[in-house]
Amino acid sequence: MSNVVPGVSPDAPAPSAVSNRPDVKRDAHPFSRSQLEGLMTKRFFYIQAFEIYGGVGGLYDYGPTGAALQANIINQWRNHFIIEEEMLELDTTIMTLADVLKTSGHVDKFADWMCKDLKNGEIFRADHLVEGVIEARLEGDKQARAKEAGESIAVPAEAAGGDDKKSKKKKVKSSAVKLDDALVAEYNSTLAQIDNFDGKQLGELIRKYDIRSPESGNEVSEPIEFNLMFESSIGPTGQVKGYLRPETAQGHFVNFQRLLEFNNGRVPFASAQIGKSFRNEISPRAGLLRVREFTMAEIEHFVDPEDKNHERFDEVKNIEVPLLAKDVQESGKTDITVKTIGEAVSAGVIDNQTLGYFIGRIYLFLVKIGIDATRLRFRQHMSNEMAHYASDCWDAEIHTSYGWIECVGCADRSAYDLTVHSKRTKKDLVVQKAHKEPKVYDAFVPTIIKKNIGPKFKKDAKIVEEAILEMDQKKLAELESQLKNGSAPLKVCTGQTFELTTDVVTVEMKTIRETVREFTPNVIEPSFGIGRIFYSLLEHSFWTRAEDQDRGVLSLPPLVAPIKALIVPISSNEKLAPLVKQVSRKLRSAGVASRVDDSNASIGRRYARNDELGTPFACTLDFASLSKGTMTLRERDSTAQRIGPIDQVIDVIRQLCDASLDWEGACKILPEYSGQQDVEA
Amino acid sequence: MSNVVPGVSPDAPAPSAVSNRPDVKRDAHPFSRSQLEGLMTKRFFYIQAFEIYGGVGGLYDYGPTGAALQANIINQWRNHFIIEEEMLELDTTIMTLADVLKTSGHVDKFADWMCKDLKNGEIFRADHLVEGVIEARLEGDKQARAKEAGESIAVPAEAAGGDDKKSKKKKVKSSAVKLDDALVAEYNSTLAQIDNFDGKQLGELIRKYDIRSPESGNEVSEPIEFNLMFESSIGPTGQVKGYLRPETAQGHFVNFQRLLEFNNGRVPFASAQIGKSFRNEISPRAGLLRVREFTMAEIEHFVDPEDKNHERFDEVKNIEVPLLAKDVQESGKTDITVKTIGEAVSAGVIDNQTLGYFIGRIYLFLVKIGIDATRLRFRQHMSNEMAHYASDCWDAEIHTSYGWIECVGCADRSAYDLTVHSKRTKKDLVVQKAHKEPKVYDAFVPTIIKKNIGPKFKKDAKIVEEAILEMDQKKLAELESQLKNGSAPLKVCTGQTFELTTDVVTVEMKTIRETVREFTPNVIEPSFGIGRIFYSLLEHSFWTRAEDQDRGVLSLPPLVAPIKALIVPISSNEKLAPLVKQVSRKLRSAGVASRVDDSNASIGRRYARNDELGTPFACTLDFASLSKGTMTLRERDSTAQRIGPIDQVIDVIRQLCDASLDWEGACKILPEYSGQQDVEA
Repeated sequence: MSNVVPGVSPDAPAPSAVSNRPDVKRDAHPFSRSQLEGLMTKRFFYIQAFEIYGGVGGLYDYGPTGAALQANIINQWRNHFIIEEEMLELDTTIMTLADVLKTSGHVDKFADWMCKDLKNGEIFRADHLVEGVIEARLEGDKQARAKEAGESIAVPAEAAGGDDKKSKKKKVKSSAVKLDDALVAEYNSTLAQIDNFDGKQLGELIRKYDIRSPESGNEVSEPIEFNLMFESSIGPTGQVKGYLRPETAQGHFVNFQRLLEFNNGRVPFASAQIGKSFRNEISPRAGLLRVREFTMAEIEHFVDPEDKNHERFDEVKNIEVPLLAKDVQESGKTDITVKTIGEAVSAGVIDNQTLGYFIGRIYLFLVKIGIDATRLRFRQHMSNEMAHYASDCWDAEIHTSYGWIECVGCADRSAYDLTVHSKRTKKDLVVQKAHKEPKVYDAFVPTIIKKNIGPKFKKDAKIVEEAILEMDQKKLAELESQLKNGSAPLKVCTGQTFELTTDVVTVEMKTIRETVREFTPNVIEPSFGIGRIFYSLLEHSFWTRAEDQDRGVLSLPPLVAPIKALIVPISSNEKLAPLVKQVSRKLRSAGVASRVDDSNASIGRRYARNDELGTPFACTLDFASLSKGTMTLRERDSTAQRIGPIDQVIDVIRQLCDASLDWEGACKILPEYSGQQDVEA
Repeated sequence: MSNVVPGVSPDAPAPSAVSNRPDVKRDAHPFSRSQLEGLMTKRFFYIQAFEIYGGVGGLYDYGPTGAALQANIINQWRNHFIIEEEMLELDTTIMTLADVLKTSGHVDKFADWMCKDLKNGEIFRADHLVEGVIEARLEGDKQARAKEAGESIAVPAEAAGGDDKKSKKKKVKSSAVKLDDALVAEYNSTLAQIDNFDGKQLGELIRKYDIRSPESGNEVSEPIEFNLMFESSIGPTGQVKGYLRPETAQGHFVNFQRLLEFNNGRVPFASAQIGKSFRNEISPRAGLLRVREFTMAEIEHFVDPEDKNHERFDEVKNIEVPLLAKDVQESGKTDITVKTIGEAVSAGVIDNQTLGYFIGRIYLFLVKIGIDATRLRFRQHMSNEMAHYASDCWDAEIHTSYGWIECVGCADRSAYDLTVHSKRTKKDLVVQKAHKEPKVYDAFVPTIIKKNIGPKFKKDAKIVEEAILEMDQKKLAELESQLKNGSAPLKVCTGQTFELTTDVVTVEMKTIRETVREFTPNVIEPSFGIGRIFYSLLEHSFWTRAEDQDRGVLSLPPLVAPIKALIVPISSNEKLAPLVKQVSRKLRSAGVASRVDDSNASIGRRYARNDELGTPFACTLDFASLSKGTMTLRERDSTAQRIGPIDQVIDVIRQLCDASLDWEGACKILPEYSGQQDVEA
């Protein structure tokens, strides 16, 4: 998985989060990643796992707010995909038999290149090392050139998002050394292709550019392959090897026949699974974006390879999506084209309706949970970057302060997986589809004469028989004509050649009446990295108040916000307590997750805490609530307050949460509250 | 974890599932485990993982029906515990730093004993081997005695649940050899204590009784310890060791300070987590009951050790629960006492309100999701079987064809975990609670004279200082009086003794004014094995029709049934198709998960399939639906059919599903349908 797109400078500042509400001024201050990260820790969204033991790279624990946000995202996902489309949900094991992953290609190919500091043993991911060192040299070159020209190059870190870039690469210090123009060009070209190099090529770059361990200055070893799967052994003998799954997909494929039977033997159908997967990254970095344990949500949609149309295509065909097709990238550009899904499929930019349908559904899902549509694009994989199993692939990429991040892959895995598992296990993983009308055609058919083939070829008889049965029409035609002339040479998979004669096989043209077509279905796989979506959503939701840069706000949509409403008694007076309980109970029966904040903090501080938790609404109970039965409703983003009878306010919140009402609509129902507008000042 | 309770014969036949409805005759046929297991596979509730690769013991995949049932159980759990009680939900990593599990005691103590066939290398769990061989010998003795007496001992397998017992122990064949009466008594006593033996004792039994590998007859090795955790290594160096967590609990404890802070520094509060855990069982058996990967739901409720009362205790105090206390078991009995939670806590049978509160809540949860209350009991652990961390423990045990199964543990882990992690990491894992009134008391206080202690004890100064600071009041009093006489010997943790004099330490009685009490909270831990509850629920739900023993029914409550309603068009006539879609859409908007069965099977077969899937309701659409807008409603358990206008039937189903209406009530709203009552005959 590669996140940096060739041609997109990773130094481009992140666009600030978009506000489409005139009453909310979200872009007064530039985005600060370190401030967001501070909030994540302070409010226990997530932290590095085993913090009190010093922490472990690439492992994160989600606290109450993070776990709830994640659960809400998953819940929306389940509704949007599984329930809405009647997918077959699975829960298969994480511990996976090594044999299965050998067959799928992961044991041989799921690896990164690493190299070692030859003296102190420090380990680097080879491409990251080359990238880091070259970027540092280019930075040093810039500094040297600026000095020469007498320019100042100090850029306010926050404004350029520079604090973030630095923290990512802090290992590699730059020093102001000017480089040849030709070398600068070479370095830039190397960086643009960094994801395409294999171990040998990375080794050549390391020698050519004398790349060394950044801290120690020591030489590093040749890159060697490191498989990214966590290995373990199942049972007490140590003889059954297992891996923690690197994706949930194989659990679908090995159960294909059971799923097909459950679906009454028909395709298309889709299975879906939400669960943990594992990748033993060499050097985890970028917070939640490159981790060792993560939650995925994967769909495997099984289709007839001859009919990739989709029944519900009409529902998405008019959705406009930002596309970055492979031919554009291959011509060195990154221009996004906005097209409707219908146009893109007609024009062949997107290969088929099913792929197009899922791209549309992915777009709708991401925007629904709060991803900024202007920072979302679908990028097609170029041929050299495709996974070993894929025949076409579009990634939903979301723009963050780390650049464009692959958050959803939508790949056409063709018949790859089912074919390899079927070959390995000798089990049929196929669909039988009745022709509407029987298909009648002529074809060459071989007849093997069993009683002769054994004695003639002895131990090789089986291999010869298999080779004959695998022949296509062209080869059979050739065989037929050769046999007419006496004998035919047959080359088998072992490399041996055998002489066929008509006493062991005959070939005749026959009329075939085919009532059933048997085929291995193709698989379209939308695969969601929930942690990456989660993090991107937080970046898109975070901003700071115009009047006070220290006051962060998480503008999470009510649909996914961990808590929907905060209940705030204006004081700790005991008289308010029964009312607080009552409102809490009423909100619960209305299906609104709420929380009481009856701490001693000032009401302004409690609102501020609430903003950091992303809670969209706050109900404030005061003495008027006791005497008049009213309650105020504060909206997080605008800090505006409205007032109304308690039951009416609760009903408005319920509607705001299930998205049947927006804040503008709420303001038409509830009058403005002017009593304590200055309480937050 | 031990499942067989001393004194309960594992051969006692399972009571058949209870029906409390007069219109449903559920007990016509005895329960057959093999029939249930057949249904589980056929309807893809679950199957052994990697089936097409030959399967792996102890690993199971859940298919669409099983995954949905499991998701519904988890969802009910989340509502019943997390939402209802505002617990702090966590999602911590499965991959766990070895250090953490070393501290918790799992690296040293989380093991079973195994032994090896000395010739062919076959591996056995030592206690299972001893148990299996002795049971076979006792069985052979029974046969021999029966032969002597000229009796027939053939028992119908189904009636005694015998088919199941056989499949469990099929490795150990019995032969009719009569044993001494004394040996029979010895064997029976050994079996009753089988869970209490350690490796050395198991080794002695193996030698004493000449227990050999059942298939080969070879001798077996001395039992050796096998740690049940899956081991792996984190990162590329191989130097950071990790284990897959054997429980989710440690993820709560290492985050305790963050959780406490999130809860504004106050106890009691509870954290909760639902997720996968792993145990590398030596010889998995008993289907879903002893597996290598499983879903747990765990609560860690942190309380002040001086106040284990519970705010909501009144809500559960009148619930009657079946209890099996430890003193009863220790006197060799298994009589269950039914008491209210209130009585049990007052009488000290259940130690405190918090433990009692959770026992009540666990009872309510299990019964709500469909566990037969007459086959549920709470059994207190005896002192010799308690886990290393527990100070008291009650298991919710559910009766199945395997005997009584521990499905929920409810342990008081005291301050064990927080204390050991705090010691290891030197981080404070404590609560500070302000006294209402400052506490004023006199106490001995040591004063260390820093400038002298260093020069006097040099490198040992720190260890001496720590030893002084750890002294309790009694020791300080002694020290004070010894110092008055000149000097005092101090023995430190290393075993060395030092001489203390008043130039390095003085002790005085002082008046202490304490405003804050600092303590390590105790933990009450209800821990749910979701897979075991899932399987027990299936056994309690399964029965076969009186009129046809081959027709299985799963009477799952609507609350957890994978699909709530089946939509059945009476024929494949195209005119019905739009109506089918419409009803499907209407059910979805009513929040009812439904599925269409428009296969070519007869309507009777489709109903039968539906019964096996546990779907409580079926809506049948026929030509009257087109002409009159009516729909019939079939209830799974009684097969009774009612009729009404489509919208009314949908509304009745909605109410049946959210439990605001029962079938009796539904029958009052919808009249009986007599049109095609014979369609299933």
